[in-house]
Amino acid sequence: MALVAGDMEAVNALIAERMRSGVPMIPDLAGHLINSGGKRLRPMLTLAAARLSGYSGQDHVKLAATVEFIHTATLLHDDVVDGSDMRRGKAAANILWGNKPSVLVGDFLFSRAFQLMVETGSLRVLDILSNASAVIAEGEVMQLTTTNNIATTEDTYMQVIAAKTAALFSAATEVGAVVAGLPEEKAGALATYGRSFGIAFQLIDDVLDYGGTSETLGKSVGDDFREGKVTLPMLLAHARGTAEEKAFWTRVVIPTQQREGDLERAIELMSARGALADTVEAARRHGEAAKQALGGFPAMPEREVLTDIVDFCVERAY
Amino acid sequence: MALVAGDMEAVNALIAERMRSGVPMIPDLAGHLINSGGKRLRPMLTLAAARLSGYSGQDHVKLAATVEFIHTATLLHDDVVDGSDMRRGKAAANILWGNKPSVLVGDFLFSRAFQLMVETGSLRVLDILSNASAVIAEGEVMQLTTTNNIATTEDTYMQVIAAKTAALFSAATEVGAVVAGLPEEKAGALATYGRSFGIAFQLIDDVLDYGGTSETLGKSVGDDFREGKVTLPMLLAHARGTAEEKAFWTRVVIPTQQREGDLERAIELMSARGALADTVEAARRHGEAAKQALGGFPAMPEREVLTDIVDFCVERAY
Repeated sequence: MALVAGDMEAVNALIAERMRSGVPMIPDLAGHLINSGGKRLRPMLTLAAARLSGYSGQDHVKLAATVEFIHTATLLHDDVVDGSDMRRGKAAANILWGNKPSVLVGDFLFSRAFQLMVETGSLRVLDILSNASAVIAEGEVMQLTTTNNIATTEDTYMQVIAAKTAALFSAATEVGAVVAGLPEEKAGALATYGRSFGIAFQLIDDVLDYGGTSETLGKSVGDDFREGKVTLPMLLAHARGTAEEKAFWTRVVIPTQQREGDLERAIELMSARGALADTVEAARRHGEAAKQALGGFPAMPEREVLTDIVDFCVERAY
Repeated sequence: MALVAGDMEAVNALIAERMRSGVPMIPDLAGHLINSGGKRLRPMLTLAAARLSGYSGQDHVKLAATVEFIHTATLLHDDVVDGSDMRRGKAAANILWGNKPSVLVGDFLFSRAFQLMVETGSLRVLDILSNASAVIAEGEVMQLTTTNNIATTEDTYMQVIAAKTAALFSAATEVGAVVAGLPEEKAGALATYGRSFGIAFQLIDDVLDYGGTSETLGKSVGDDFREGKVTLPMLLAHARGTAEEKAFWTRVVIPTQQREGDLERAIELMSARGALADTVEAARRHGEAAKQALGGFPAMPEREVLTDIVDFCVERAY
């Protein structure tokens, strides 16, 4: 991470600068989320991808900030849509300021993202990032149609996470190559890396929402369950369950039908049916595909960073 | 209007095409609003401005659709933020589909707008429209801070409407000139036209929310009042009121403190204090400024359209 530390400092300074507004509520609300200790994973991907592509300019800093603004805008809207109480261990912005400012400041950050990317003057970059934004929104709407629906297919679930999560990872790495002027084939390889990593990342995230495969439960365990969000661990446990277990899943996917002890039973069943382990295994496979996509790039430290981050992400689940 | 009818048909076809998505809820929800008989005023401005600027290509159709998508996205988010029941005489999308899809489909339309403008390949156009988007969002947040606040100054109110309404009118007309390749000075004149017209339009809208200056009340009268939205008619009536009237305004600006008959009294006081007439007069002045900004353009039918639409808008209030 030290490799991109200087660039990341520039990204953070740019984010702070562009969050500013004559309307104080905007930097207050946006800063609450942006300075809440997020991992800056997506901008890091852009920075590393650009450097791996041999880029020596400064536009990658703008693109990294763009990607973080898009991500932050979607988090603000997600928290309104999900009625979330907490985000990154703090009260969510929608709780502290209300839904209205959260929606509108999300719109502001989204606009700021577009202003920043326009400054790079690269139409190819604008194309990639505006397409990604549309796909993300489509994925979020598609996810609404799968919520509380235990009949969701594995294929639909994969489409949802490819759109809502992997599209931004993919754009984040692809624009790093594009800003460096790499040919389409090489940029495509970095896009593939991002897409595969994004899918792996979301699969692990969904496993961690049930505490991972270890016995110790993290603090935000059960959020997806309580909202009736249908993710791969639930789909696998349902598909492999007995008739009685299928009835359990059909009941608990509707939050109002949940009872004391249901989350614990859900985790037990997911463990017993290998649903968590197999979701991690799927993530591992997508992670391998991500790493393989980097094969054509020189063995620079940045390639190692991009490889290691995939392993680190998948290992979080153990 | 017949003058731009052919172009507007192309805009409507493009809007229908770009609303499409593999997720059926998106065109369903977006179409509900987009096909609900909106006036297409903003895209009409773009079309007329481009033709007045001598443009003979087809990119102005994309820009007009862009402007309508941005407008529609803000309407969807506004209705969530305001908790609106009705929009254009039909149940609002947030009522029929819920807040979640309305927020996310708004994000989708916003992304579609950016995709469309990127297709024009004009960085200057992208700059204008991405800046306008940021200003609109700032204006919407600023408006939140004025809601329920009778101490809002006239200057702050003017800033709010310049940002939330006039910025998009201004961008809509300016990009018409830019896509036609007009020099900055001419494009600036069309931007000024749009900005002044946008302010006039919003002032009249705020008057119409109290039924205009006539005795007959329209159907959506009182929405702003019931939400405690502070607009110029209220500010003027408050500033010119007696101590007892000031106490009335201070009470009723908080929706929970409103009583039966308050809206009728509010309209009476606004009339008695000349608040509605003077707001219309302010609109008329901004409308004149808009028309004057067109002085340097040839006396083409498109100039007449842009002039007449201003008069038509101001006259709505009588």
